[in-house]
Amino acid sequence: MNMKNRAILFANGQVTEREIAISRKTAFDMVVAADGGIVHAERFGFVPDAVVGDFDSLPPDSRKRFPGTRFVHQPSEERCDLEKTLIFCEKERISAITLLGVTGKRLDHTLGNLSLLIRYDRRFSLRILTPEAEVFIVRDSIKLDGIPGQGISLLPMEEAEEVSTSGLKYPLSCETLAFGQREGTSNEFSDSCCSISISGGLLFVFRLYPEN
Amino acid sequence: MNMKNRAILFANGQVTEREIAISRKTAFDMVVAADGGIVHAERFGFVPDAVVGDFDSLPPDSRKRFPGTRFVHQPSEERCDLEKTLIFCEKERISAITLLGVTGKRLDHTLGNLSLLIRYDRRFSLRILTPEAEVFIVRDSIKLDGIPGQGISLLPMEEAEEVSTSGLKYPLSCETLAFGQREGTSNEFSDSCCSISISGGLLFVFRLYPEN
Repeated sequence: MNMKNRAILFANGQVTEREIAISRKTAFDMVVAADGGIVHAERFGFVPDAVVGDFDSLPPDSRKRFPGTRFVHQPSEERCDLEKTLIFCEKERISAITLLGVTGKRLDHTLGNLSLLIRYDRRFSLRILTPEAEVFIVRDSIKLDGIPGQGISLLPMEEAEEVSTSGLKYPLSCETLAFGQREGTSNEFSDSCCSISISGGLLFVFRLYPEN
Repeated sequence: MNMKNRAILFANGQVTEREIAISRKTAFDMVVAADGGIVHAERFGFVPDAVVGDFDSLPPDSRKRFPGTRFVHQPSEERCDLEKTLIFCEKERISAITLLGVTGKRLDHTLGNLSLLIRYDRRFSLRILTPEAEVFIVRDSIKLDGIPGQGISLLPMEEAEEVSTSGLKYPLSCETLAFGQREGTSNEFSDSCCSISISGGLLFVFRLYPEN
């Protein structure tokens, strides 16, 4: 049995108390940081087991402050630090990752990260925590708990075919969503749970935190 | 001749001094706000000629503070306030729009707005100002001025076929970019101008502001 299969991954984007509070309720075996993500880890009292990247965003005295941390230097310019860290996680046989700091600073980086995650989401169980929502990449179906009135948005970052839902205020029945054509933003739970299914493609589902 | 063909549009996302400074160098004939975007307009000293939306984000005393402004109430839930405002602009025969506040608050709204703009970019000449970059939707080709070293990112929010570039540090030659498969983030100008062409699909080009 692999004893280190659940990781929390700090990327270099925005991290707020909100995601940290959720992370603290999450069981995990390992903390990893993508380069400057180590700053978020330290700020919120997490000690990374490993830091991966080209280290151009690493504070200079990081090695001293984290003597027990593995610093995995990957200078290649071909992949970004987040991708290097995901590849590291795969080698470490991590199977489930809670991602923090993937979004929020530069929009081009945010979009690049979301595009990247589509290439890796089949290798891990991914859960993306952003300052306002928990985000899931859905390829077949998902069931989510919620509170009636709680916000949920369906973003087809590629095409999502035959989207059907139950438990949402604005239901969808076998409808195709596609970026640039039709989205499913600003929906909400009408029940205490919802289910969303698609027949092809993929969908990003944003479950807004209840207070949003 | 239509005397009101260039508009500045304030949406309800994030607006910083950065975009405002650029907007102040932009000639325009009309200021419009999508619902709560009026708050940004007021904060930075712009008086909107029109405000469009369901008005659920409108500060209660807006009509008093802007007695000369047209308040175009569109209560329908079928379209978001940004789309209602774009439709209004089309009716007003606006042909060029500088958009502010389209990104930055909630990521699901940001993505929904980008998706929406793809549906409208052929009707207007659109220019999107974000806190860190000027964003263009490219369907055939674009030439951009820059400074060697200045950041530029190519995001294929749909597929972009046969992308070719000149004047960039990491050149592309007839390569297909597609969201979830291959992006062109974190490139930079190698010259004082660059050109980007595609043979099909579309591309979001983020020209980072020089200091980023």
